[in-house]
Amino acid sequence: MNLETFIRDIPNFPKPGILFKDITPLLNSPEAFAHCLEELVSKTPDTIDKVIGIEARGFFFGTAIAQKLSAGFIPVRKKGKLPYTTISENYSLEYGDDALEIHEDAVRKGDRVLIHDDVLATGGTAKAVVNLVERLGGTVVQCNFLIELEFLNGRKQLNSPILSVLKY
Amino acid sequence: MNLETFIRDIPNFPKPGILFKDITPLLNSPEAFAHCLEELVSKTPDTIDKVIGIEARGFFFGTAIAQKLSAGFIPVRKKGKLPYTTISENYSLEYGDDALEIHEDAVRKGDRVLIHDDVLATGGTAKAVVNLVERLGGTVVQCNFLIELEFLNGRKQLNSPILSVLKY
Repeated sequence: MNLETFIRDIPNFPKPGILFKDITPLLNSPEAFAHCLEELVSKTPDTIDKVIGIEARGFFFGTAIAQKLSAGFIPVRKKGKLPYTTISENYSLEYGDDALEIHEDAVRKGDRVLIHDDVLATGGTAKAVVNLVERLGGTVVQCNFLIELEFLNGRKQLNSPILSVLKY
Repeated sequence: MNLETFIRDIPNFPKPGILFKDITPLLNSPEAFAHCLEELVSKTPDTIDKVIGIEARGFFFGTAIAQKLSAGFIPVRKKGKLPYTTISENYSLEYGDDALEIHEDAVRKGDRVLIHDDVLATGGTAKAVVNLVERLGGTVVQCNFLIELEFLNGRKQLNSPILSVLKY
């Protein structure tokens, strides 16, 4: 399956100079979605206790990955969106700064955690989530992404094994 | 399965006087997630072409429902978040006003559409999404929700068949 035909380039979104990879055509195809889902779970370690999806586009495949692996799903969200007690990490990304939060009881000590997001860009977001997991006593066993923007060198930010389905 | 044990009450979130139903414990249990997913697809009409998930908590089950039904998934998002050409509807909800957008090419004329969100409260959000679908020529064949807050009478806003897993 030629997945690239399901990714739409949007120039100057969300800011001038950014070429945004729009994955909505891929989401709109059940066959393309299923194909990517299989790739995303194809090389996971034996045991995964929890899958984290990063707000908001990391939720699209995050819950589906969790179900495939019979793991619990954990949303990591932007500041103020999670209702219960949280811990927080600041991060910088391709276009701006923000903070990410996780519920303090979401990861338990010793949990083996897979982190998922739609795009690996500079790696700042994923690195912040790795920090959140480790502060709660979990171990990150894989970070996976639908798309990796290799020219931004996000891999260098992450010590964990990385899987990406599409590379640009 | 007693699903209510997976829902956590959070008083005064996101605003004073609101008792928020936190579904993250349910997401964190693969068994509870799978149980709810089965309920959400158990009474769907024969043919569903597209499943809409409403930002952001509607994404948790939205893609999983779409995969179960072999349907395409469409995100409806808040103003400015979708990268391609959109149409928009204003709506009012339990705590504030906002606008929701959908890509103009997401629904095709004649598509049979299922709309999913985590909570049915006053129905304002779902009603706005029904309008978006109908403006694009689609037919809403079901609106389904993980939780229905019956005392807010959201059902009265919607003419489509409604399914909810948990009622309060």
